[in-house]
Amino acid sequence: MPEDAQKREESQQPATAQDQTAAGEAAPSKKAQKKAEKEAAKEAAKAAKREALEAEQRAAQAVLNKKVEDLEQDVFGYLPVIDSRIRTSRVWIPVEDLHNHVGETVWIRGRVQESRGKGSVAFLMLRERQATVQGVLDAKRGNSKDMIKWTTSLPLESVVDVQGEVVKPEVEIQSTSQKGVEVLVKKIFCVSKAAQELPFQLRDAMRPEDGTEGGIRVNMDTRLDNRILDLRTPVNQAIFRIQSETIQLFREFLLTNKFVELHSPKLIGGASEGGASCFTLKYFNRDACLAQSPQLYKQMAMCADFERVFEIGPVFRAENSNTHRHLCEFTGLDLEMTFKEHYSEVLDVLDELFKFIFKGLSERCKKEIDIFHQQYPAEPFTWIEETPRLSFSEGVQMLREAGCANIPDDISEFDLSTEQEKMLGRLVKEKYKTDFYMLLQYPLKVRPFYTMPDPHNKMFSNSYDFFMRNEEIISGAQRVHDADLLTQRCLECGVPPSSIQTYIDSFRLGTAPHGGAGIGLERVVMLFLGAKNIRQVSLFPRDPKRLTP
Amino acid sequence: MPEDAQKREESQQPATAQDQTAAGEAAPSKKAQKKAEKEAAKEAAKAAKREALEAEQRAAQAVLNKKVEDLEQDVFGYLPVIDSRIRTSRVWIPVEDLHNHVGETVWIRGRVQESRGKGSVAFLMLRERQATVQGVLDAKRGNSKDMIKWTTSLPLESVVDVQGEVVKPEVEIQSTSQKGVEVLVKKIFCVSKAAQELPFQLRDAMRPEDGTEGGIRVNMDTRLDNRILDLRTPVNQAIFRIQSETIQLFREFLLTNKFVELHSPKLIGGASEGGASCFTLKYFNRDACLAQSPQLYKQMAMCADFERVFEIGPVFRAENSNTHRHLCEFTGLDLEMTFKEHYSEVLDVLDELFKFIFKGLSERCKKEIDIFHQQYPAEPFTWIEETPRLSFSEGVQMLREAGCANIPDDISEFDLSTEQEKMLGRLVKEKYKTDFYMLLQYPLKVRPFYTMPDPHNKMFSNSYDFFMRNEEIISGAQRVHDADLLTQRCLECGVPPSSIQTYIDSFRLGTAPHGGAGIGLERVVMLFLGAKNIRQVSLFPRDPKRLTP
Repeated sequence: MPEDAQKREESQQPATAQDQTAAGEAAPSKKAQKKAEKEAAKEAAKAAKREALEAEQRAAQAVLNKKVEDLEQDVFGYLPVIDSRIRTSRVWIPVEDLHNHVGETVWIRGRVQESRGKGSVAFLMLRERQATVQGVLDAKRGNSKDMIKWTTSLPLESVVDVQGEVVKPEVEIQSTSQKGVEVLVKKIFCVSKAAQELPFQLRDAMRPEDGTEGGIRVNMDTRLDNRILDLRTPVNQAIFRIQSETIQLFREFLLTNKFVELHSPKLIGGASEGGASCFTLKYFNRDACLAQSPQLYKQMAMCADFERVFEIGPVFRAENSNTHRHLCEFTGLDLEMTFKEHYSEVLDVLDELFKFIFKGLSERCKKEIDIFHQQYPAEPFTWIEETPRLSFSEGVQMLREAGCANIPDDISEFDLSTEQEKMLGRLVKEKYKTDFYMLLQYPLKVRPFYTMPDPHNKMFSNSYDFFMRNEEIISGAQRVHDADLLTQRCLECGVPPSSIQTYIDSFRLGTAPHGGAGIGLERVVMLFLGAKNIRQVSLFPRDPKRLTP
Repeated sequence: MPEDAQKREESQQPATAQDQTAAGEAAPSKKAQKKAEKEAAKEAAKAAKREALEAEQRAAQAVLNKKVEDLEQDVFGYLPVIDSRIRTSRVWIPVEDLHNHVGETVWIRGRVQESRGKGSVAFLMLRERQATVQGVLDAKRGNSKDMIKWTTSLPLESVVDVQGEVVKPEVEIQSTSQKGVEVLVKKIFCVSKAAQELPFQLRDAMRPEDGTEGGIRVNMDTRLDNRILDLRTPVNQAIFRIQSETIQLFREFLLTNKFVELHSPKLIGGASEGGASCFTLKYFNRDACLAQSPQLYKQMAMCADFERVFEIGPVFRAENSNTHRHLCEFTGLDLEMTFKEHYSEVLDVLDELFKFIFKGLSERCKKEIDIFHQQYPAEPFTWIEETPRLSFSEGVQMLREAGCANIPDDISEFDLSTEQEKMLGRLVKEKYKTDFYMLLQYPLKVRPFYTMPDPHNKMFSNSYDFFMRNEEIISGAQRVHDADLLTQRCLECGVPPSSIQTYIDSFRLGTAPHGGAGIGLERVVMLFLGAKNIRQVSLFPRDPKRLTP
């Protein structure tokens, strides 16, 4: 650098006024001299300006990077990672409760969902779970321009702590959930900075699908690939609250009715219930598979005197089904109960159970259901007090009368196709005004080996499916509780009895007649809401093509 | 047969009186003749007797095999398999409610737990779930001897329907749970016949382990191999009611405190949380493993704004641990929550949660706890309102002061052995009179990579274990919620960040500080009761040696 400096000095020599004067004839005119002086001044000014700009940029950058050093004195900036260093006496108010704190100065923690600055004013939309509130920064009220600049530079979805005064806005705020209040920000600290570039914008993931609004939509795969961000939308927050409530209602009803909650093993020796749709693995050098359902174990619990049991747990299906309603892992709501004389005793319990769930969801999740339907419009789910109980034969008759093709004359090996189920659902809805009904006494040949044959007609069986919005949500039956008959049914169905000998032998210890059902939680939620794809109601869905996140 | 008959006729010819008379000199004396006649008469009598006996045996056998042919007229016998042929208007009374029906003739269904006949009287012990009642048959009151014979021939554990009159016995019955009533049997039908030979006798499986009674005991392996029968004992019925109630209390508390119940996938891509104790399998040609816990997913739910979540589900550990407290599949009670400033906010919730469970079990399961302790005596579980929160260093200090060896001077890589945990538990119990306490701030090096380091001393971490009766029941911590710090911790712990990139990247979308815990349901139940083996409180336990039933 000294060398460079010297060179510059040398090259500048001819330009000094002194030398030029001394040079005689070659000296420039006064006019030229003035011009040169002017230009030099201009250059200097430019450099100064440039320097000032750079300093300003550095200062601005410093503002944007500002770290909180003094929790009491600082009013904005990035907090160090919260590692339980201190516990203050701050009182934190949930955003959804702010309307109860008008006039107070409070602390809230939320995400920056949206932000925009207009000169010396900035507006934030702060979100905590489903609740949003407007935050306002205003130079006129004492917020510094640095603070406003810093705030509007925060990447969306960052988590911030805000201290502010809760006030009533002059006019209600349309864009937030907490319309009657806003927060005049006094301090704002960033707890966790989000990436500058998000995989998609939350506002795009929240647009209604009712055709009223233009703009970008986010497709299912992008959502699922970035499920963490997707799950933050009000619709998804609503869906999983509805799902949680569905489980609680299921439990509440069953516990009141003297059921016991059990947990049966998912790792089982040999084959599960037969069939190929089983995930297999090694268990300390032995062959094991993942339970396709708690079927065998909940029946064994019947043999073990539990009388009424239920289980809520994962169910694994290695089926290469890529449809809107199949998953390879889902949450099974299973129940099994003894009965005295007739499996309709089981149907009575199931019937009351479902009506209890429908009623409970409608009452307890009204807000969440509304949020869902605002983005994904659907007819409200309808049911009637007297659930129709149609026999399979009656169902087939209704389809035939409505002109449905592809039903053979001999229905002893016939099951409804998805399309026929939908058509039958529509016919039932027309006739009974309900989205919920039961179909009983399926042909024996289309049901599993453990299904009790119909005593009045061996072609049929004491089995049932329930439907919601024309799609199957539960499958169940009276089970064969006699070891000899069960062995015979195994052989007839091509299931080697030796592969499930422990299960069969359980019935040799004496067993009361029993029946039950397996319910797909995700299907119930999907169809209650009228969602179009089961992946939407599974937290981290698993299908043949998706194993992550 | 005709041929045989002819031969017999021929061989009998020399013995006829006529031939003998006609034979002259060779004829026997009168005396001899009389003797022969006598003998012939004796033979005939014998044959007649034999025939009568055989007929009697046939008749007796017919009685023992008697099938019910007329439901209205028959008073005993085997019913056909109940296949929902009919639904009568019979009113069935649960055995546990019989004391409300004295003087009435009722129907009950139960198992024959014991039976003994004394000539024309028979006593049955009938069991339904945990409730037992005495049934009486008496020829004097009109029960036929056939009926009594048939009844006492029923294999124990068979399921029967009994119609009878509920009466108060002259003296209270000591051997049944329903001491104030007995049932005078009018009709008894067998619904399901148990095998003649049971793997063990229920009475042997029910003997108290308090040294007061002699007789056979059933060992753990025999019990588990025949779990169906074992589960019928009052102790096991009690254990699984307590377990069901534990789950309900867990849920009740968390739902009241605004937690949401989620279900995260058990099938996950790549490795789970690192470490080798992972069951692996093929998922449509991809490598997958079974989740060792919902750890990563419940944290991702924090990134997805759920704020407070819990999950109840199976947890899989491919650990070759053959101890009294390890299982390869157990039920995890997991929870995770954001906090504002300090992870002690999480401890506060966990502390209240456990006290709620202890109090709830003591109140709601008093009867079941008593049943357990009658067979397996143990001190009642004790806790205090102010749960002790000791730091790991304090715990080590207590052990050192008590003369515990094998504690290095540098505890930065030290964790307590099972024996040291037990010793510390005893010291804590002496000092604080509680079976429940927390140990905080473990050395960072003995905790998983996702544990937040202690800001005041990097040798330690913001982690905790809780103990019941000197054994660990939960493990938890504040988690690292900063992606860069998490990556650094992964590298320090030898976990390739790429194997859990989705998880790490979740934190780049902004995350509030959070912490949580994983609780082993079976351990909580085992230690609350003071059971000695975790297999006792697992419905169908899975350990390295057991994959069935």
